[in-house]
Amino acid sequence: MKFRQIHLVSRPSGPAASLDNFAVVSCALPASTATMAKNSVLVRNAYLSLDPYMRMRMSDVKSYAAPQPLNAPMLGGTVGQVALSNFDGLKVGDWVKLQGGWAEYTELPGKACTKITVNKDVPASAHLSVLGMPGVTAFYGMRHLIRPKAGDTVVVSAAAGAVGSCAGQLAKLAGCRVVGLAGGADKCAVVVRDFGFDACLDYKAHATPKELQESLARECPSGVDGYFDNVGGDVLNAVMPLLNPFARVAVCGAIANYQAAKPVPLLQPNLILTSRLQLTGFIISEQPKKVWDEAQAELERLVAQRTLKWKETVEHGLENAPKAFLSLLRGGNVGKQLVAML
Amino acid sequence: MKFRQIHLVSRPSGPAASLDNFAVVSCALPASTATMAKNSVLVRNAYLSLDPYMRMRMSDVKSYAAPQPLNAPMLGGTVGQVALSNFDGLKVGDWVKLQGGWAEYTELPGKACTKITVNKDVPASAHLSVLGMPGVTAFYGMRHLIRPKAGDTVVVSAAAGAVGSCAGQLAKLAGCRVVGLAGGADKCAVVVRDFGFDACLDYKAHATPKELQESLARECPSGVDGYFDNVGGDVLNAVMPLLNPFARVAVCGAIANYQAAKPVPLLQPNLILTSRLQLTGFIISEQPKKVWDEAQAELERLVAQRTLKWKETVEHGLENAPKAFLSLLRGGNVGKQLVAML
Repeated sequence: MKFRQIHLVSRPSGPAASLDNFAVVSCALPASTATMAKNSVLVRNAYLSLDPYMRMRMSDVKSYAAPQPLNAPMLGGTVGQVALSNFDGLKVGDWVKLQGGWAEYTELPGKACTKITVNKDVPASAHLSVLGMPGVTAFYGMRHLIRPKAGDTVVVSAAAGAVGSCAGQLAKLAGCRVVGLAGGADKCAVVVRDFGFDACLDYKAHATPKELQESLARECPSGVDGYFDNVGGDVLNAVMPLLNPFARVAVCGAIANYQAAKPVPLLQPNLILTSRLQLTGFIISEQPKKVWDEAQAELERLVAQRTLKWKETVEHGLENAPKAFLSLLRGGNVGKQLVAML
Repeated sequence: MKFRQIHLVSRPSGPAASLDNFAVVSCALPASTATMAKNSVLVRNAYLSLDPYMRMRMSDVKSYAAPQPLNAPMLGGTVGQVALSNFDGLKVGDWVKLQGGWAEYTELPGKACTKITVNKDVPASAHLSVLGMPGVTAFYGMRHLIRPKAGDTVVVSAAAGAVGSCAGQLAKLAGCRVVGLAGGADKCAVVVRDFGFDACLDYKAHATPKELQESLARECPSGVDGYFDNVGGDVLNAVMPLLNPFARVAVCGAIANYQAAKPVPLLQPNLILTSRLQLTGFIISEQPKKVWDEAQAELERLVAQRTLKWKETVEHGLENAPKAFLSLLRGGNVGKQLVAML
């Protein structure tokens, strides 16, 4: 029997990735545990997580992650069910979270899988969004770096995305005024109506960073105490002058730079001193287990209480992962971008 | 009897301050405590501290400090001896530290003065440098923000200055490789020979930021783990790409911007994310008493041990304070810039 993987077969030649950077590759499934490594499992992946950081790894440039190897499966997080097991800790049918890559099946050491609970309140896919990397990213950036107090004003970019939507809700729970930034009127409506932000500005409806800054200033009459930055670039430049003394900026993503020919400069770095700002870049996968455990416990509690909302944009079929990924980079998603392979 | 103050009589019309922004004003001394406010003292200032931050306050722009009022004495820290007292806590002859301003005498509430110890190991002027604001600034930025570990590489700009020379010595005491940046070969020699830095680069001897970066890369073969930034601008741009993952930047000053027509942009803010950097701007006067007490106790211990060195550039006569201040802004000083009025 065969299954499919998506390989990176070429690196983007310019700023933008394209469909021909990817290829579907057919592979043989192990017929039984007899042909599998000791203590390994075969997982049938149900959902693949697509994330903006993957674009950085497609290019062979210095970044926090090693470049994605060529002619090998694209890396990525998945959830799925164990299909074959010769590992004592997991049996066929168990739901697990893993670095399964862009693949319908993954064979890997059993201890590299994390068993997850799937029930009517918590679908399998939630472990890739609100309870997974995006949720923990939002939690760490908001609770550990922005540390909002009741009455603070917090701005969140890419507010309709998996990370931003969660980050903004956590700031609302802390008693803040929360203003989102998103691309398009539809997304802004979702951010306010479904995620409960106080306001959301459509950055695409502003012709210049200056206009965006003026709109944002109107929505933040007491200035900005925390900025959860998923995009960098012009939006960061628009937010900077509105930051209050001692404001914190959690630098979580830089979508604006991932497909740009060169980085957008920060126009007023002098504000770091004059407004006594703290800007901290972070990658959640590097945080210790303690941070993940604390975040996941709290997020599970909030999900169980139905206090925390999340959304998904689901593409069906692994062969459509490249298309869905390029759409994600253009902001085509609301909430977590997933590929379903069930 | 008369004494002199220096007033700000006009704001700089362009980027550079000039001598005609200042004027010497003659004032009457109180003849006795009878004409002074209750619980006040009259201090004869011995030394005035000149600091780059004063340039910012001369302009009427948004910054961390309110603009310096026009037609009033320039603000600034001094040390001096009590000349008249109707405050129980201080008697004539006591040495005190105060916000005395650019003035030969200052009348102020006794409780606004801090009594200081002056002896053969600790001259009065040390309370304005290594034991005063510059020393505490260096201590806070290094110990609380950069938090160096043995084996780290730390870069310090304005390394021959009062803050930078102390910051670098604290990093050496922590077991770091310490590379200074200063303007001119003479200053660089002082930084290495007298302050014990491992190396010091003359930024003026480099035609472009790129060349400076290349020299710095050679002096920092293991990258840079901490950067104590006193200058901002092109130097910050040169250091940024050399920063290792998780490096800390203490943003303490931005001398490059104080007299610039517009801020120098930060060219690669994307590195904040990709190198997981932390940039923190701070103003030492805003830190709580606990921070000052901890720093001063440790600095006094290091001075008493003769472990910590400091230097002073002293101008004589209050009337020469404007000239000395403009020289400071051009980097004319080594160590702490003071005006002696004894």
